[in-house]
Amino acid sequence: MTKADALRRIAARLRIHSLRMTTRAGSGHPTTCLSMADLMACLFFSEMRYRLNDPEDWGNDEFVLSKGHAAPILWAAYAEAGIIPETELLDLRKISSRLEGHPTPRMNWVKAATGSLGQGLSVGVGIALAQKLGHSPGRTFVLMGDGECAEGAVWEAAGAAAHLKLKNLVAVIDVNRLGQSEATMHGHDLGAYARKFRAFGWAVHRVNGHDIPAILEAFKKVRFSGVPAVVLAKTVKGKGVSFIEDKNGWHGKPLKEDELEKALRELGPMPAVDSKGSVRPPKKALRPGSKETFAFERTAYADKTATRLAYGIALEKLGRVNDRVVALDGDVKNSTYAEKFFASFPERSFQSYIAEQNMVGMGMGMAAKGYIPFIATFAAFLSRAHDQVRMAAYSFANLKLCGSHVGVSIGEDGPSQMGLEDLAIFRPIPGCVVLYPSDAFSTEACVEAAARQPGIFYIRTTRPATPLLYSREEKFAVGGSKVLRRGDGDSATVVAAGITVLEALKAHDELKSKNIGLRVIDAYSVQPLDVETIAREVAQTGGRVVVVEDHFPGGGLGEAVAAALAGQAKILHLCIRELPRSGKPGELLEAYGISSSHIVRAVHDLVRP
Amino acid sequence: MTKADALRRIAARLRIHSLRMTTRAGSGHPTTCLSMADLMACLFFSEMRYRLNDPEDWGNDEFVLSKGHAAPILWAAYAEAGIIPETELLDLRKISSRLEGHPTPRMNWVKAATGSLGQGLSVGVGIALAQKLGHSPGRTFVLMGDGECAEGAVWEAAGAAAHLKLKNLVAVIDVNRLGQSEATMHGHDLGAYARKFRAFGWAVHRVNGHDIPAILEAFKKVRFSGVPAVVLAKTVKGKGVSFIEDKNGWHGKPLKEDELEKALRELGPMPAVDSKGSVRPPKKALRPGSKETFAFERTAYADKTATRLAYGIALEKLGRVNDRVVALDGDVKNSTYAEKFFASFPERSFQSYIAEQNMVGMGMGMAAKGYIPFIATFAAFLSRAHDQVRMAAYSFANLKLCGSHVGVSIGEDGPSQMGLEDLAIFRPIPGCVVLYPSDAFSTEACVEAAARQPGIFYIRTTRPATPLLYSREEKFAVGGSKVLRRGDGDSATVVAAGITVLEALKAHDELKSKNIGLRVIDAYSVQPLDVETIAREVAQTGGRVVVVEDHFPGGGLGEAVAAALAGQAKILHLCIRELPRSGKPGELLEAYGISSSHIVRAVHDLVRP
Repeated sequence: MTKADALRRIAARLRIHSLRMTTRAGSGHPTTCLSMADLMACLFFSEMRYRLNDPEDWGNDEFVLSKGHAAPILWAAYAEAGIIPETELLDLRKISSRLEGHPTPRMNWVKAATGSLGQGLSVGVGIALAQKLGHSPGRTFVLMGDGECAEGAVWEAAGAAAHLKLKNLVAVIDVNRLGQSEATMHGHDLGAYARKFRAFGWAVHRVNGHDIPAILEAFKKVRFSGVPAVVLAKTVKGKGVSFIEDKNGWHGKPLKEDELEKALRELGPMPAVDSKGSVRPPKKALRPGSKETFAFERTAYADKTATRLAYGIALEKLGRVNDRVVALDGDVKNSTYAEKFFASFPERSFQSYIAEQNMVGMGMGMAAKGYIPFIATFAAFLSRAHDQVRMAAYSFANLKLCGSHVGVSIGEDGPSQMGLEDLAIFRPIPGCVVLYPSDAFSTEACVEAAARQPGIFYIRTTRPATPLLYSREEKFAVGGSKVLRRGDGDSATVVAAGITVLEALKAHDELKSKNIGLRVIDAYSVQPLDVETIAREVAQTGGRVVVVEDHFPGGGLGEAVAAALAGQAKILHLCIRELPRSGKPGELLEAYGISSSHIVRAVHDLVRP
Repeated sequence: MTKADALRRIAARLRIHSLRMTTRAGSGHPTTCLSMADLMACLFFSEMRYRLNDPEDWGNDEFVLSKGHAAPILWAAYAEAGIIPETELLDLRKISSRLEGHPTPRMNWVKAATGSLGQGLSVGVGIALAQKLGHSPGRTFVLMGDGECAEGAVWEAAGAAAHLKLKNLVAVIDVNRLGQSEATMHGHDLGAYARKFRAFGWAVHRVNGHDIPAILEAFKKVRFSGVPAVVLAKTVKGKGVSFIEDKNGWHGKPLKEDELEKALRELGPMPAVDSKGSVRPPKKALRPGSKETFAFERTAYADKTATRLAYGIALEKLGRVNDRVVALDGDVKNSTYAEKFFASFPERSFQSYIAEQNMVGMGMGMAAKGYIPFIATFAAFLSRAHDQVRMAAYSFANLKLCGSHVGVSIGEDGPSQMGLEDLAIFRPIPGCVVLYPSDAFSTEACVEAAARQPGIFYIRTTRPATPLLYSREEKFAVGGSKVLRRGDGDSATVVAAGITVLEALKAHDELKSKNIGLRVIDAYSVQPLDVETIAREVAQTGGRVVVVEDHFPGGGLGEAVAAALAGQAKILHLCIRELPRSGKPGELLEAYGISSSHIVRAVHDLVRP
């Protein structure tokens, strides 16, 4: 049997599996699997190299299914390779199965969850970058749909890949002409895609996506591209089954039992072929050994310091003791102070330019290969990558994000630059840790905690310089808090974080002069929240609590405390309740109701009988 | 004086204003203003046509400053045109001033807030589309920075503009080579930008951005492009002041007083010129008259109907009575049922393909010109446009968004397709209305309410068909709620919305059989929340309340209720607390703790002494 014949048989098997799986599940996207079956056969059973028993082998080629709705054919390919039992395919989409409707790393060969279109190429850029950084001989293949090429994130990734000279990155686009609800913008005009990718610095190879020898030839050419390469494959949605081929209205619809029978008759009997034997092992490669500790020498701050600056200083020190730490910037490194890491470790620093979606997607890819990415930009601009953050959570990614310039305390630059919804992005995600330090010492502790504990961390930093509240030795546990002021007979508790801790301390002093005791808690761990301490302290102050935060009302510290203390406390919530404007930081804290004078007033309102 | 001489003088005046304003304010971005001064002079005082006393004149050319940090020169141009007094310029960035650090529509010529980079072109696409739709002779000019071209949203907009054949759209890129923290990806390589825009279907014109006759010539060529056109202008950051020209490290820094004096000496005295007299009025044009009522004939539903389907049916009916309503889709119109509007009103329907950022940005632009855009996609994918939603709020935009397929109730497609953080996107925004109907009748009412009331609305719809709970005549006020079950001596209240209302009703029936009364509230208006009703009903049931929602814990209905009832109630919050997986809808509601059986258990926990 020629190689092409064997691959044709494998492709037929992948088609048959995909149809059966989706009919059995009663949902799914069979037609989008059929268009890419020949491409998948050539990739998994000829071009790609991977160690069947080790998804983490450092020499592996990596695969990202950006068009995640084609998950069935990915699971089918793993079954053909012998990685999962063929019988398991019929568990597709069951609640007990790792074979979900769209890929997630519950199946251990999947490096990042996909299904929100247009994200896979960024993940691929990150993986390819990690391979390059770690001297892996592996390449990264990203299989994309044509429809998702409308997503801007694709072009952020395309630009980054060319700029980073990732010749080990290969995109394969299944141009099957049909989107979900109608034809795509460019239909079968491969030239339109070719012009775009070429303009973005890629090598372009066009091919009939159902002609196996032609596909193999295209992949051969790709190896010598010297730049990121894209294979534009002209395909037919539903290929192989006459009554669904190239027809609109069949997206995301499984065949009914009788339609399946008819389709299987057209495809013929399951052909015999040694799929598993066709898999090519990778070249030998060792994951680079590296320094890996987390405790770095803390800085002996002596004066007011912005927490964003402390973040930068801490990150640089972390970089000295841990080679797995990498830093990504979106052209604001002189504001977030990631520039300190960039200056000391240029080879582990990646300028992502003003393209936050790709920056986070790249981070996901690097994390999937074992690096610990620290990604910093203005908190406001992380909203640009909300969907990537969401998918990072479904990817169980070990990603560390820092948002600087939060709240109205940034001052004159105005609302577009103020992070006022960032806590509401990160808090909802189960398991996401959200830290919001109020001084330089606690910021350094937060950076160490983020590096040490796996998972998604979000660190919120402030623009203006703020006084030191702690000592260099103070410990800050994830899930902890600090009671900064406590007196017998305190009348109320104020729960604050970041910039508002300072306002709370001022309010404490002012109230003290009037003989009213105010307990002050620094809730630096916004999530998990230190419910035990807060509940205990609040109970000791008559169940009266003021929560004050530089954030919009929803999804922040105030609602976290309200949810935690429901029924146990009378809460006044001070936060930004209007669309703010430009002004001086102090003026804005006052105008929007989160300054010490407002705290004082709120305490008076609470203690008034 | 030749025209070019006059424009050179105007450009000099704009430079001097920009420097003075930022020095006075003590912050801001003078160097980025200086690079584009000659372009601004040519645009505002030669090429663009607008009615000085009417920013809403239907014949006006429109201008979007995508590089919002250059706001000072925009304010300076308005001062030169006589639209604002020159003395007002020195109020830049004061808390009392409409001249904010980045443009917002507090200054009434600004059609959309900018400052989060890469969004302006989408807004421009929307404005140009509105001009085309309303037969305005006006064109739309978008002035962009080179750095922001790394943003994917720019390429979503570029693709859409070409596809929509917007020959009335002109982008001008100030290629000044320097970003905030270092040189941009392409520096002064204009060819790189030219290749990209050409590949995306645009006419490209290259020019020296400081050569006024050449700029005028380029704009003349633009008029005959027949497709969207971009003017790539090679410029020097800080142009005109030797010690800051083309120097890194000067982004976002005002000159000190002595530096300003030195700079002003270099620029020479403020030249005399009749700027205002150079402004060209627009061609006469009338805003199209239109049918505009909001009350449409309600559907006589007789059977189970998905709220997403009712959304589609209602939107089509609204379209019949209101010509200002337009619909935008991100290639899921057969899932959101926007397809019904598309079928009836193709001329007011815009396929945005899989590019949610541009879809929302386009909607902002259309809203700014008086249309009422209804934008629908899967709720999960609105997270992709979070930053645009944020900026729409700062733009005071009249935008209606619908997110379908929310929560685990979508079933087998898995987590990437489940809207589980959408409430946390929309609730924090002050003034944003969030409606989450539980049946077809209430959905139709929500669509009408959204059209009728200006501002940002978010309507959350559900995938599976659900029973009818109300009558065709029932009224649903914004800020209201419905008490669906109430009995004397009810033991607890359950607050639900959407799919969980049905689970609450089931729980009610089950508890009734055990002689436990459960009050059931449909909180369809998640924001504003009907605090009065909820507080009253909860108080009547012993302060015991269960909140149940198909959403992650943070930022949703549970925290809204907790914040509203703080201190007044014992609350149990049922929501999705893990990263969910594929499965059948009923299984998932059960597995993740928001089904009727969990409500029953929660009520037992609450009433247990």
